[in-house]
Amino acid sequence: MDTSLLYLIDLFGTAVFAISGVLLAGRLRMDPFGVIVLAGVTAIGGGTMRDIALGATPVFWIRNTTYLWDILITSVLTMLIVRKPKRIAWWILPVCDAIGLAVFVGIGVDKSLAYQDSSFVAIIMGVLTGCGGGIIRDMLAREIPMVLRSEVYATACIIGGLFHTLALYLGYSSSVALLSCISATLIIRLGAIRWHLSLPIFALNR
Amino acid sequence: MDTSLLYLIDLFGTAVFAISGVLLAGRLRMDPFGVIVLAGVTAIGGGTMRDIALGATPVFWIRNTTYLWDILITSVLTMLIVRKPKRIAWWILPVCDAIGLAVFVGIGVDKSLAYQDSSFVAIIMGVLTGCGGGIIRDMLAREIPMVLRSEVYATACIIGGLFHTLALYLGYSSSVALLSCISATLIIRLGAIRWHLSLPIFALNR
Amino acid sequence: MDTSLLYLIDLFGTAVFAISGVLLAGRLRMDPFGVIVLAGVTAIGGGTMRDIALGATPVFWIRNTTYLWDILITSVLTMLIVRKPKRIAWWILPVCDAIGLAVFVGIGVDKSLAYQDSSFVAIIMGVLTGCGGGIIRDMLAREIPMVLRSEVYATACIIGGLFHTLALYLGYSSSVALLSCISATLIIRLGAIRWHLSLPIFALNR
Repeated sequence: MDTSLLYLIDLFGTAVFAISGVLLAGRLRMDPFGVIVLAGVTAIGGGTMRDIALGATPVFWIRNTTYLWDILITSVLTMLIVRKPKRIAWWILPVCDAIGLAVFVGIGVDKSLAYQDSSFVAIIMGVLTGCGGGIIRDMLAREIPMVLRSEVYATACIIGGLFHTLALYLGYSSSVALLSCISATLIIRLGAIRWHLSLPIFALNR
Repeated sequence: MDTSLLYLIDLFGTAVFAISGVLLAGRLRMDPFGVIVLAGVTAIGGGTMRDIALGATPVFWIRNTTYLWDILITSVLTMLIVRKPKRIAWWILPVCDAIGLAVFVGIGVDKSLAYQDSSFVAIIMGVLTGCGGGIIRDMLAREIPMVLRSEVYATACIIGGLFHTLALYLGYSSSVALLSCISATLIIRLGAIRWHLSLPIFALNR
Repeated sequence: MDTSLLYLIDLFGTAVFAISGVLLAGRLRMDPFGVIVLAGVTAIGGGTMRDIALGATPVFWIRNTTYLWDILITSVLTMLIVRKPKRIAWWILPVCDAIGLAVFVGIGVDKSLAYQDSSFVAIIMGVLTGCGGGIIRDMLAREIPMVLRSEVYATACIIGGLFHTLALYLGYSSSVALLSCISATLIIRLGAIRWHLSLPIFALNR
């Protein structure tokens, strides 16, 4: 996969995740600074935790501040434009989010394999990159993280990570592995959105 | 203390902490992935924060993935087996938890002294290793961390850490210091469970 | 600015932030250990996140434990002395907090510029150092972080950071830049307290 294309999709995913933070903030009656913080945390929280756990510091957005400008501009524009979220077709955000998610997982697996060898750890880092920001966003907003409760969200990331590491294990190039990870995550996630797939819930009787 | 015995108890403590995460998740109606995340966060959250603060990155479970397999297998088995937590004798989990806690505190103090010299910091790292995972678990589950509210839990860790550093200060070997830390933490915690000991609560009249 | 004076104000800010943690804990009926944890998190949480993101580990309070003693002594004294917070004049805590905040922002910007070059990142690190502890404190206490919701709090930090980096850009010495940052943050924050300034809230109609 072309590196510059991947980078562009990464910036697109960052922007989409930032928008999801802005929209949540809009329901919580935050001031503009709070909105931007929530947008930023959603967009770069996962990658930040990945880099910190790997010891890849300073974290990625300190090395390349384009991500910060991306978030700032996206957030300000979203605040200026969006007044009636109902007018947006319901499927636009989830589909963009799925694209961002898929790219984040692929980048997370890829980057972690540059720092250590374990496929297990690489898959965890992919999931963390994809889901971590949303988890912090929900914790800040005092909600039990949606990711942990339902829908095939994190599961899509895990399967994407499995495709990635399996492809590498079978000898495919890192571009092919990355592409298979992104495709698998995206397809599963889009299917889950389309058909409202959820895993069965684990509940204990007390 | 025999290193391999300590390692085995460490893996046992990790498993027990994972089970406590699974049981909490079962009350929150999470999907299986959410359950495993909550189990993992409880089991390795404290040690992860310790390693990150010390700069001991990549963190311990990236260097040795046995901890991850331990958590994964324990969580899946717990989900398959446990249906009626009421049938488990009430004291089994707290006692196992106390064993895990005591070992985690000892390991936390021990490891931090390999990275810096202060006994004060070492005790904090012991408490963080023992209590940190439970604190993140409760935050994810949207509860005020139990550790901070009552029972002689963190207090047992602090006293264990004091024993550890005092023994080293008095010239005992690191094995003896570790053993005294684990014993002190365990005995105090078991006593607190048996006699329902709590510290007096600090409350302000307003 | 005299380094030793800055260090003293830093310790003063740490103590004031610790007191704000103790007072919140007093409303939540925590045990003394929980109180000290909440105090510590409030006082050093922001700087800790800054150091971790920058890769400046071990974090500052591991390198210099004076901060820890500062928090411990302040927290214990506050628990012993304060019984009726109503008797304290209402403006004393916010004004002390503003002083601590201003110094923390200046130190955060200053320290981050020793590790990387971007002014954008430096301002974020200033805001993180000033506001991060309060955000973790509120998350532990299960409240939506106050900082994100209203009052010109983080905004004061951002403007302070802008003054700091602008002064450096214009060729002033780092002492002058630091002083302008601290002054700007302090004046804006005191003004916001005095006249109850808030930014307009961003709210979405659904």
